Amino acid sequence: MPHIALPGGYPGIRSLFMYSPATAAPLNHLVQTLLHDPATSTLTPGERELIAAYTSNLNTCKYCASTHGAIAKYQLEGNGTLVAQVLQDPQSAGISDKLKALLKIAAKVQQDGKKVTPADIGDARDQGATDKEIHDTVLIAAAFCMYNRYVDGLATWAPEDPAVYDAIGKQRASEGYMTAPFVVK
Amino acid sequence: MPHIALPGGYPGIRSLFMYSPATAAPLNHLVQTLLHDPATSTLTPGERELIAAYTSNLNTCKYCASTHGAIAKYQLEGNGTLVAQVLQDPQSAGISDKLKALLKIAAKVQQDGKKVTPADIGDARDQGATDKEIHDTVLIAAAFCMYNRYVDGLATWAPEDPAVYDAIGKQRASEGYMTAPFVVK
Repeated sequence: MPHIALPGGYPGIRSLFMYSPATAAPLNHLVQTLLHDPATSTLTPGERELIAAYTSNLNTCKYCASTHGAIAKYQLEGNGTLVAQVLQDPQSAGISDKLKALLKIAAKVQQDGKKVTPADIGDARDQGATDKEIHDTVLIAAAFCMYNRYVDGLATWAPEDPAVYDAIGKQRASEGYMTAPFVVK
Repeated sequence: MPHIALPGGYPGIRSLFMYSPATAAPLNHLVQTLLHDPATSTLTPGERELIAAYTSNLNTCKYCASTHGAIAKYQLEGNGTLVAQVLQDPQSAGISDKLKALLKIAAKVQQDGKKVTPADIGDARDQGATDKEIHDTVLIAAAFCMYNRYVDGLATWAPEDPAVYDAIGKQRASEGYMTAPFVVK
């Protein structure tokens, strides 16, 4: 049960967006820019969603890891097996060496930004990552350390049914983040 | 030295805002709404800045803790001693019991949102905190777990000179967050 009185029918962060529209506006704008807009990053939406899902999984945020895992699946031509592999162990998953290096940086950011070393950055550059891609990775991982804490710190509702996350994933991969929320009947 | 090539003369997050204007817009909008706008919270700007500075200090983010500590000072009639007390030990500082209870929640969010218990929420309510004030506290603490990681994860420049933070604090307390950045000569 949520710690504060939230509107019913909306899972996770969507219940908080309905509760507090003034903060929902920049939070939604941020996630749209970070994960969905094609013009703001040379990382693909699928790669960006994987960074978000991976960070959320490290933070054991069920709602965010399930939601962004499902969105990643729809951004990766339905390849849910790849998403599951990345969440379990990115270094043995079927992804590029560049993304593996970026996910190592994301895992350090999840703990503490100061854990990222020049060697981590050098490894990412050696695999072809640009400064902007390193920047985007750090900010996505940092942002999900916020979203995860917001969702869990107020004990929002995380549905059990995987079909709910799949429906949200399909919607967000197609529409982005600025459209009306999915309502669980 | 920063991990990526950032424009010189701008400390901390301001160098990142200059580097990436597309993400700076929602990040700046969020902090303005969370900490400065009088209409968006019944917590005072001074109380909100204390939550931001306290969380940043727990994350040992020198730039953010120093900056928001200085802004808090200017929002609290120049009472830098009170700010230092709150950063060191909120429970013995000269602040309201409501703010003490909210800072306990912020400290749990800084670790993991799931650490916030119904008893923590009950304590805050017993001291007069509203649902919206609990919400705002959780989101401020969560947001600074992002800003701190963004600033530290890219190894941005944190000036040593306390006078720099004092000048930033005076500017932001007066102008809010949407004006041009302070440039260190």
